[in-house]
Amino acid sequence: MSIKLTILGCHSATPRTNSHTTAQFLEINTKNFLIDCGEGTQVQLRKYKLKFSKIERIFISHLHGDHFFGLVGLISTFALLGREKDLHIYGPKGIKEIIVLQLKYSKSWTNFNLYFHELTSKKSELIFEDDKVTVHTIPLKHRVYTNGFLFKEKLAERKLNISEVSKIKEIEICDYQNLKNGKDYTLKNGTIIKNENLTFAPLPALNYAFCSDTMYQPQIADLLKNVSLLYHESTFLKDKEHLCDTTMHSTAEQAAKIAKQANVGELILGHFSSRYGNLDAFINEAKPFFNNVQLAEAGKVFELKNAENKKLVKSHSQ
Amino acid sequence: MSIKLTILGCHSATPRTNSHTTAQFLEINTKNFLIDCGEGTQVQLRKYKLKFSKIERIFISHLHGDHFFGLVGLISTFALLGREKDLHIYGPKGIKEIIVLQLKYSKSWTNFNLYFHELTSKKSELIFEDDKVTVHTIPLKHRVYTNGFLFKEKLAERKLNISEVSKIKEIEICDYQNLKNGKDYTLKNGTIIKNENLTFAPLPALNYAFCSDTMYQPQIADLLKNVSLLYHESTFLKDKEHLCDTTMHSTAEQAAKIAKQANVGELILGHFSSRYGNLDAFINEAKPFFNNVQLAEAGKVFELKNAENKKLVKSHSQ
Repeated sequence: MSIKLTILGCHSATPRTNSHTTAQFLEINTKNFLIDCGEGTQVQLRKYKLKFSKIERIFISHLHGDHFFGLVGLISTFALLGREKDLHIYGPKGIKEIIVLQLKYSKSWTNFNLYFHELTSKKSELIFEDDKVTVHTIPLKHRVYTNGFLFKEKLAERKLNISEVSKIKEIEICDYQNLKNGKDYTLKNGTIIKNENLTFAPLPALNYAFCSDTMYQPQIADLLKNVSLLYHESTFLKDKEHLCDTTMHSTAEQAAKIAKQANVGELILGHFSSRYGNLDAFINEAKPFFNNVQLAEAGKVFELKNAENKKLVKSHSQ
Repeated sequence: MSIKLTILGCHSATPRTNSHTTAQFLEINTKNFLIDCGEGTQVQLRKYKLKFSKIERIFISHLHGDHFFGLVGLISTFALLGREKDLHIYGPKGIKEIIVLQLKYSKSWTNFNLYFHELTSKKSELIFEDDKVTVHTIPLKHRVYTNGFLFKEKLAERKLNISEVSKIKEIEICDYQNLKNGKDYTLKNGTIIKNENLTFAPLPALNYAFCSDTMYQPQIADLLKNVSLLYHESTFLKDKEHLCDTTMHSTAEQAAKIAKQANVGELILGHFSSRYGNLDAFINEAKPFFNNVQLAEAGKVFELKNAENKKLVKSHSQ
């Protein structure tokens, strides 16, 4: 049960020598996902020595260039490196047409299967589920159709309380899986033993929500309730709040208000406008509204682990 | 009369932390051109502090990703930076559809005029001409339709030999332009004075030929005859010559043979396969066939100047 999030880029609009557009590498409950893919993402993946061949699914929030112009290059590189395993891409309608057109003209079809899952719903929906993780969309409000994504670990099995289980001779090994699944145990005499007396609760599941790009939208807090880690865009500081309506972006204060309202564990700010040199002001403007806040930064790693019901949050820059 | 060529990227296939795919910034006779535009080109333009807003025309050799995946991002950045002046793009048929589709989905139409000049001819053709420069295609042989480009300065006007001109009282200032244009002068008594006795020849025009990607094709030497500076791809060394047929690339030796056959002034090798760590071997394999050879390298600048009929070639790395 762990989350490791590596920021690959966290600036808006255009890539520059020392600032990269949005992309994040997420390792959650042993699964590897890429979230957004601005130009140069494949170079960032190499720079931070991430095993990007392990990426199984790529989630694209919207079709502004700073969130997907690196996708076709990454797919082409996978092909050149001889990738064989399937690649799934989730993103707005149109993403398939854009990628396929370029592969067609370059006569560079992939040897692996490429699956596109095009999104059109304006309501939150489950778009991926396996035994480890679920992914739901978070409908955002931006100049083009945009989704955030909520990645949730699935709860692990309950853990047997062996000292209690061994006291009841009737319980056989073949009963263990039912107990781990949370079932009560019925003795031959009809007495029911509550599951919680025979097992320990699993560690709480962790989850991560990614919200970029969006204008301030308090209603998304319902979808973000109690998430362990939230990334919320903060393109502007308060001095440029008047730009939020036309550009459909948020300020640091607005992001912090969402974090507070949703009672999240930790907030990461990102998608900074290039007009800001020193980013400390983003923290200063957010803190009065939500204290557990950090800045995204290319190469920065956020790790969350559940250990004996104690949540550990660490972050470090590379 | 000068050429300044800055290499932005010169590796094949995929961009990496320290190697960039093909792009070159060419300043020729006061005109600014971009040649090819691999992913990350806009970052390279910024890194080397090139005034990329001055680019008027972009030439794309072919639709393999390592030569054009950075184009849509560069166009978007021009739009974000408020560009107003026209941008002309020359490249294979399909390039317009690819770019326009992405601008459409991102709802990010440019405020400046974007002109696409799609190329389909398999013969060399004049694709641009103004009072300073001409650009012709160089048909290459690759896995997809590909052109190199030949950039030629136009000859400057002849320069008046004032001491000779002033000896002939009949010649008036209004005659000067005819003399600069190379016309002889006819005296009132019918005597013809040859133009070369009244003017000096202009400095020879410089030219630059870009050939990437292509398999060895000796017949292009006719188009490259006596060019001042030639960039010719050399993806492989001799050890991998057997790959040239299937991948349709060249070796360093083959590039040198083209340079020799065309009697060019200087040869630049590039488009190196990432399998080669130390690139000195490319020079070693080319030199026996053509001595004036250098390696492309990101940030390297090649400058050619004509000064009093003496050609100066300089190169330096940044």
